[in-house]
Amino acid sequence: MGLFKLQKKCDATSARAGTLKTDHGHIETPVFMPVGTQATVKALSPEELKAAGTQIILGNTYHLYLRPGCDIVGRFAGLHRFMHWDRPILTDSGGFQVFSLAKLRKLTEEGYAFQSHIDGSRHMLSPEKSIEVQICLNSDIIMCLDQCLEHPATHEQATAALALTTRWAKRCKAFWQEQTDQRNSLFGIVQGGMFPDLRSRSAEEIAKIGFPGFAVGGLSVGEPKELMMEMVAHTLPLLPADRPRYIMGVGTPEDLVELVGLGADMFDCVMPTRNARNGQMFTERGTINICNARFREDEGPVDPSCDCYTCRHYSLAYLRHLYTAREILAYRLNTIHNIHYYVNLVKAMREAILAGRFDHFKKAFYSKRQRTDS
Amino acid sequence: MGLFKLQKKCDATSARAGTLKTDHGHIETPVFMPVGTQATVKALSPEELKAAGTQIILGNTYHLYLRPGCDIVGRFAGLHRFMHWDRPILTDSGGFQVFSLAKLRKLTEEGYAFQSHIDGSRHMLSPEKSIEVQICLNSDIIMCLDQCLEHPATHEQATAALALTTRWAKRCKAFWQEQTDQRNSLFGIVQGGMFPDLRSRSAEEIAKIGFPGFAVGGLSVGEPKELMMEMVAHTLPLLPADRPRYIMGVGTPEDLVELVGLGADMFDCVMPTRNARNGQMFTERGTINICNARFREDEGPVDPSCDCYTCRHYSLAYLRHLYTAREILAYRLNTIHNIHYYVNLVKAMREAILAGRFDHFKKAFYSKRQRTDS
Repeated sequence: MGLFKLQKKCDATSARAGTLKTDHGHIETPVFMPVGTQATVKALSPEELKAAGTQIILGNTYHLYLRPGCDIVGRFAGLHRFMHWDRPILTDSGGFQVFSLAKLRKLTEEGYAFQSHIDGSRHMLSPEKSIEVQICLNSDIIMCLDQCLEHPATHEQATAALALTTRWAKRCKAFWQEQTDQRNSLFGIVQGGMFPDLRSRSAEEIAKIGFPGFAVGGLSVGEPKELMMEMVAHTLPLLPADRPRYIMGVGTPEDLVELVGLGADMFDCVMPTRNARNGQMFTERGTINICNARFREDEGPVDPSCDCYTCRHYSLAYLRHLYTAREILAYRLNTIHNIHYYVNLVKAMREAILAGRFDHFKKAFYSKRQRTDS
Repeated sequence: MGLFKLQKKCDATSARAGTLKTDHGHIETPVFMPVGTQATVKALSPEELKAAGTQIILGNTYHLYLRPGCDIVGRFAGLHRFMHWDRPILTDSGGFQVFSLAKLRKLTEEGYAFQSHIDGSRHMLSPEKSIEVQICLNSDIIMCLDQCLEHPATHEQATAALALTTRWAKRCKAFWQEQTDQRNSLFGIVQGGMFPDLRSRSAEEIAKIGFPGFAVGGLSVGEPKELMMEMVAHTLPLLPADRPRYIMGVGTPEDLVELVGLGADMFDCVMPTRNARNGQMFTERGTINICNARFREDEGPVDPSCDCYTCRHYSLAYLRHLYTAREILAYRLNTIHNIHYYVNLVKAMREAILAGRFDHFKKAFYSKRQRTDS
């Protein structure tokens, strides 16, 4: 399973740089993965994703299973050709969306019985079904089905959830080994709520099953930021150092800087895309809202230090106009900038780690932000 | 005023090919101009417009005057830099939108008193104001303010409207001569409703005032197709042959083929962009609706004979999926195809005229369509 190669570890922190091998090319870590829920990263073309430096995108199994469905994507031998994206794809298990979007009918040992949020049709998402769908999508990195928990959860609820997650992880691995030649990679997911003892137990059980990579799930579900960081700081050292570590569904630029410092390798988050569509833009000085009246006549770009397509060609005044007029191009230009910001923030961290200057990078990152407040 | 150069006339029809000179480059006619109402051709980037072969776009003075306003666009020395489009721009007078979109308060000799459809604010659009705004937008081709009419209108109404249009045309020309060095071009507009005698009178009056180019307005307002063609066939020969002739706001692919045959040089229409957003795609065999269930598993492109970005990279099944899921990328990919179709249909007519094969082109165009019905 020589998927991951560790290239360099930071001396002062746990930050690390590596490479991940897939059938659709190598990925340099740490890496940020834009979210392409419905076989498209909202508002962007594949070429725009590449221009931003995107190495890998995430697809949502729940959405794709319901629409267009495996029969359609299967005709294209998977998601890559269907959506005109030839670089790696990671798919989630669908569990989180069943939990957050669908009408969950029943959670049993077998899996999630749920109703589609689109048409109310009834479905069963079992560990085997999740892997089967992800194989059909021809995903490069596929995720085990886990049990999601609301926050706050009791110790008892979290214990039961992690136990089920472990049993499902075994079924996922068995099915994956049986159904594929393992050229794709299956990642195990650590749960355990906000309880260090349960995070330890889950990490131990999932690591023992053995996977090409590991994810920390159940974060950013409403808990305080410090608690999230505490859970990650507690969990990551318990995972095999020679495997990639993926923090699911997180987070702000500050979160990513902290998490890389804790030794995380992979991230996905809807924040750059969703916030772009809400008019919020990320800059090295902090976030701005494009609707702000102070940009009405501003001939400058969103971020003078940015070389994305949007910042090279368009002014704040124009972007504000487009957004105010609800023009479709507004969503695209905003998203191009935000994805460029996220992808390149993580890329800059990688370069800093390789150059042995991650601590310096982190200081500079925060000092630029602090200047915004003055 | 050496704006227009006639290159070739068709023997069998009145079709003609020429070039139009502007400060932002030459335009080869016949030409189709995509509509960029609010300083953007909906869903497309300037690069995508160029990739489709777009030579010139149309901006709507009414919209741009209200939002973002001349003070903003003026800071960028016009629309080109504001919207990152360095090729020619034609702007309309704003009259048609006041008539169709705004709350018209009063039409007087002075101009249109109206309320904004955005915020209800009160404004006066006079001939001088229209030209002033278009100069501020730094438009390459600017249009005279004319009086629009509903269909059907009485002979009396149409007579009064054409008389006012003539008086306004004189004021527009005087203001344009006074305020500019005439490096941009002002086009006069022929009105006259659906009455040949009034079209004759209007054409004579507008031609007598003298303009670098002429437009036929007041068409495609609900009249039968035959009547529209009759009006154009009647009017175009009355206009100076050494000036470009622009048919405003028309039409279907069939309309364009017929109108080029009648000697028209320039066209604009929202049909390719608007219909794209409604899921209707133009092909050489006719129109298709991307939502159609028969495309569910179709791995082929929208039009096998098309080499646009959308047809080169995406299947009908994917486009149907995107559209069904209301993904932003759907509107872009559909629009790219439709604009490519329109721009290249007119370009193909130009090439046919230059090659002395326009009648052959026309036959082939209709024979491909007829095949769709079988």
